[in-house]
Amino acid sequence: MSTIKRNVAIIGATGAVGEEMISILEERKFPVNDLFLFASQNSAGTSLSFNHKKYRVEVLKEEKLDIFGAIDLTLLSAGTEISQKFIPLIAEKGTVCIDNSNAWRMDSDVPLVVPEVNYSDLNYFNRKNIVANPNCSTIQMVQVLKPIHDIFKITRVVVSTYQATSGKGKKAMGELSSQTIALLNQQEVHVKEFPHQIAFNCIPHIDSFLENGHTLEETKMILETKKIMNAPSIRVSATCVRVPVFCSHAESVNIETEKKATPEEIRALLSETKGIKVMDDPAKKLYPLNIMATGKDDTLVGRIREDFSIANGINLWIVSDNIRKGAALNAVQIAEALHTEFL
Amino acid sequence: MSTIKRNVAIIGATGAVGEEMISILEERKFPVNDLFLFASQNSAGTSLSFNHKKYRVEVLKEEKLDIFGAIDLTLLSAGTEISQKFIPLIAEKGTVCIDNSNAWRMDSDVPLVVPEVNYSDLNYFNRKNIVANPNCSTIQMVQVLKPIHDIFKITRVVVSTYQATSGKGKKAMGELSSQTIALLNQQEVHVKEFPHQIAFNCIPHIDSFLENGHTLEETKMILETKKIMNAPSIRVSATCVRVPVFCSHAESVNIETEKKATPEEIRALLSETKGIKVMDDPAKKLYPLNIMATGKDDTLVGRIREDFSIANGINLWIVSDNIRKGAALNAVQIAEALHTEFL
Repeated sequence: MSTIKRNVAIIGATGAVGEEMISILEERKFPVNDLFLFASQNSAGTSLSFNHKKYRVEVLKEEKLDIFGAIDLTLLSAGTEISQKFIPLIAEKGTVCIDNSNAWRMDSDVPLVVPEVNYSDLNYFNRKNIVANPNCSTIQMVQVLKPIHDIFKITRVVVSTYQATSGKGKKAMGELSSQTIALLNQQEVHVKEFPHQIAFNCIPHIDSFLENGHTLEETKMILETKKIMNAPSIRVSATCVRVPVFCSHAESVNIETEKKATPEEIRALLSETKGIKVMDDPAKKLYPLNIMATGKDDTLVGRIREDFSIANGINLWIVSDNIRKGAALNAVQIAEALHTEFL
Repeated sequence: MSTIKRNVAIIGATGAVGEEMISILEERKFPVNDLFLFASQNSAGTSLSFNHKKYRVEVLKEEKLDIFGAIDLTLLSAGTEISQKFIPLIAEKGTVCIDNSNAWRMDSDVPLVVPEVNYSDLNYFNRKNIVANPNCSTIQMVQVLKPIHDIFKITRVVVSTYQATSGKGKKAMGELSSQTIALLNQQEVHVKEFPHQIAFNCIPHIDSFLENGHTLEETKMILETKKIMNAPSIRVSATCVRVPVFCSHAESVNIETEKKATPEEIRALLSETKGIKVMDDPAKKLYPLNIMATGKDDTLVGRIREDFSIANGINLWIVSDNIRKGAALNAVQIAEALHTEFL
């Protein structure tokens, strides 16, 4: 590994993902020379700690972007609008943007990368100086699908998600808390972050609705899966649901393969796959749970069983920390790859 | 409707479903002549109210079953073991047993009935004097599938459930409360009713595990669907998950049909189906929610949209009160049918 140190910026530094990015850069000893933190006006002036040093959070302003000429890597998690507006301006100055929003994911000149799945797509990072971090629900699913696809060729996927409130940020997690407390005290529930009450309730509505009745979240899972796996022929049907859980997304995934796969073969294959932990012993009540995945790097998979409704069917239950592997960790892994091999 | 009144017994009267049965018999003005309530030793001596009159809860004892010779209809919701043991003994005395457990559902001499779906199967109720009430998750699904199947012929169903704690009874609902309170107060969580912590967590494990890796709950959904719909060729894949919700089960259902169906056709069809309420206007954030279905008779359906991953695919989101239509209401509807037409 090179001894070069990098100047790193984080835009959206005070959000749930931004804070986790800082913590993961520290945890994984990313060779940071200097760190630049940006957030919206609301968080201006606050400081965040990195490697025992305080860093002041600045407001991102269009007239003050020259600094990005001196920044090697910029990690963004500040929403689609900010990414759409600022990335072209700062990428032009030479900083490589690793973007956690939906703004650039489907751009054919922007690699959409889960390092364990399509590392080599980083080869074209410099076409626009942008690498896109996929949607959280997509990341954990493709991690599991890829090794299976390589050997058994997946033809179709039907996924239903059980997504944590952290996916919508800190305020959304707070709303799950406050609504829960209100209900347990027989008080009125206030709804602001989610379209409806989330406490003790499931909401089949994540991100906006499209004309065809699907949500944008569901559409991301369908399109991003094909791009990341470089497999446009894989057909995906997705239903995305918010559940009253703080952390980690769970997914019920049904797959159909061209070549017959047994649960034993899938288990053996996934056990050898980096970034995945097979947790599958029903007799011992062992299967992935949201509370088990939270704070962990690995994506957990279990309930691996034959789906007898088709000739070559397998059901799986996949759980991963949506803020870590689903966002911050994956972005830092991309940064590590760029640092060691591509920059 | 006849003016005859019936003697009715409820076994498991103090449970979540038993209490709801009493309340629904009253609400729907079922012509009860006398009411007999039974429960386990734990609830002996308590009294429950029906039509402004108190009824004492008795302990069910093998040596005191002669009373059932005078009882027209017995509704049971006291678990599989009690049903297995007592139903043959009391049915023999002439009472018709409407059983909410899994004990008799797949017996070919026992009709398994959702009145809106297979009313005419009640024709053979007297082979054993038993009518089985299906699994809660199955009832709400077949209500929606049947009218679609009649016109478009369903070939395959992939369902993932989001099941409420009430499905496991009152103590289980209490455990969701107590664990939630413990966590919000940063206290230790005690696990007893569920295999793991249910508060702010999803558990992909309902009922026991079978050799093939499926749970009994999943297997019920597969087998019962075929029997109720009288359609052994419908292939079903099910994943059953407990979520931290008090009431009402939600289901993400993907279907494949032989004849192409548009979402508009499905919406129109289901809007005319008794027992179903279409709630499907994404632009107005209108889709079924657990908290909307709770306490209601109708099964709610929404998020009806084309699944573009196959030629003839439709996705649906189905929510129903698992204690009402999923158990007590369906049992009382069976009792009503038997009363008016079959007894």
